[in-house]
Amino acid sequence: MSDLTKTIRRSVLKISTDQHGWEEDEIVTEYPLTIFLNDEEFATIVCTPADLEEMVIGFLAAEGAIKQYAEIKQLTIDEGQGFAYVDLHQETILSQSFYSKRRITSCCGKSRQSFYFFSDARTAKAVEEGITVTPVQCMSLMKDLQSSSGIHRQTGGVHNAALCTPDGVVLQYSDIGRHNALDKIYGECLRKGISTEDKILVFSGRISSEVLLKAAKIGASIILSKSAPTELALQLAEELNITAVGFIRNDKMNVYTNAQRILLDA
Amino acid sequence: MSDLTKTIRRSVLKISTDQHGWEEDEIVTEYPLTIFLNDEEFATIVCTPADLEEMVIGFLAAEGAIKQYAEIKQLTIDEGQGFAYVDLHQETILSQSFYSKRRITSCCGKSRQSFYFFSDARTAKAVEEGITVTPVQCMSLMKDLQSSSGIHRQTGGVHNAALCTPDGVVLQYSDIGRHNALDKIYGECLRKGISTEDKILVFSGRISSEVLLKAAKIGASIILSKSAPTELALQLAEELNITAVGFIRNDKMNVYTNAQRILLDA
Repeated sequence: MSDLTKTIRRSVLKISTDQHGWEEDEIVTEYPLTIFLNDEEFATIVCTPADLEEMVIGFLAAEGAIKQYAEIKQLTIDEGQGFAYVDLHQETILSQSFYSKRRITSCCGKSRQSFYFFSDARTAKAVEEGITVTPVQCMSLMKDLQSSSGIHRQTGGVHNAALCTPDGVVLQYSDIGRHNALDKIYGECLRKGISTEDKILVFSGRISSEVLLKAAKIGASIILSKSAPTELALQLAEELNITAVGFIRNDKMNVYTNAQRILLDA
Repeated sequence: MSDLTKTIRRSVLKISTDQHGWEEDEIVTEYPLTIFLNDEEFATIVCTPADLEEMVIGFLAAEGAIKQYAEIKQLTIDEGQGFAYVDLHQETILSQSFYSKRRITSCCGKSRQSFYFFSDARTAKAVEEGITVTPVQCMSLMKDLQSSSGIHRQTGGVHNAALCTPDGVVLQYSDIGRHNALDKIYGECLRKGISTEDKILVFSGRISSEVLLKAAKIGASIILSKSAPTELALQLAEELNITAVGFIRNDKMNVYTNAQRILLDA
């Protein structure tokens, strides 16, 4: 088990219009983890210090550095220093700078530039079939996500993400970084060989293009959010055949793309 | 003026427990902008397509590529392609990969690793004096931020940031990316020579370490947020002599660091 702590107590001056005083409060921690890939510094992720192995595996897969968990020969985490050492069976082919390079030429004969990074175009694949879900199931999954997140209730400081069947949560992670919570799900799916196309991704934050691309990389066919989507995310959801549902609040929800997976008469 | 649009109308399937139907809704756009610095690809920022010059200037300063606006010889934006071309009077000294490198050795004789990136340690400076503000002024500034943000009310999809005096807003920007909204403020301050140490930064999102570092780079002595801070952000706020105030909601607020700038008896 880890010695790292997800929250810490701190003295806070609480002020309201008619009184004020110092009280102890629970604050969420942030932890910089630097990943070395085959002995080279690859990236530093600032994260909630929990489930670090899942996060590293998911991050490397999302960035296109690995496709399968089996490509990892060894993964060691030095918690005190905040270092993750990953050795792959093969030499890494792509240089780090490649990952953040923009795809300047449009591809697929399209003028839209939905895929703006090389690594996303390589790793985000369209969903083929997917599953169906009822509105009541969507609303219930969002309630489950929020009610089970202890750290969020304590501190108000983290994003929550869960991988679910229509009936309930399979995996759930929280992190101060929206992408990290999704990477943790991705890493655990790869490590345990959990199928994803028959699952629903439930997320506390907005559906930005980056979040939608993570969902596509994970392979989920439906993404549920309590918040707003962006237009670029919805274009990507159309291209990648993902159902995007937002603003799930108070027994209401908005279906933005691929509404055929939402069963209205069930 | 720009041809780019900050929101777009889209047909959405709105579902509630007792009815459903397709309605037009306003969706926030996302726009990838690739910055070329002295003809080399430097970074791609995904942003709300508005105030792009301010954002580019602020981003380059936050990354340590420039210190002053006068270092920029020419800044041209090709909105159609999503490219920003920046020519500096001097050759750029640091390679791109340097910016994202972690500071592996601790510096300043401290064992804490609050500054985890080289570029932050170079560019984030401690505030010397700063200003004072009353709780009522803090709460009033947060209300001003939220009430004046038209795009957020329409779409629920953006972060808002404002630079203020104790009495009101001086600059305000919104962006789907939390950091972009802050970079836009930074860029405009550099371009117009606006003083910052006598100002307050008001922000709609959480105070993460990255947000706190942006505030330090901008040079504001007080940061107000309606949301939670992280412990690492509060450590940085202590080191950089910044007053961090969070959870400003319903006439309540929490002061986390440097409470001497909050005037309780005023």
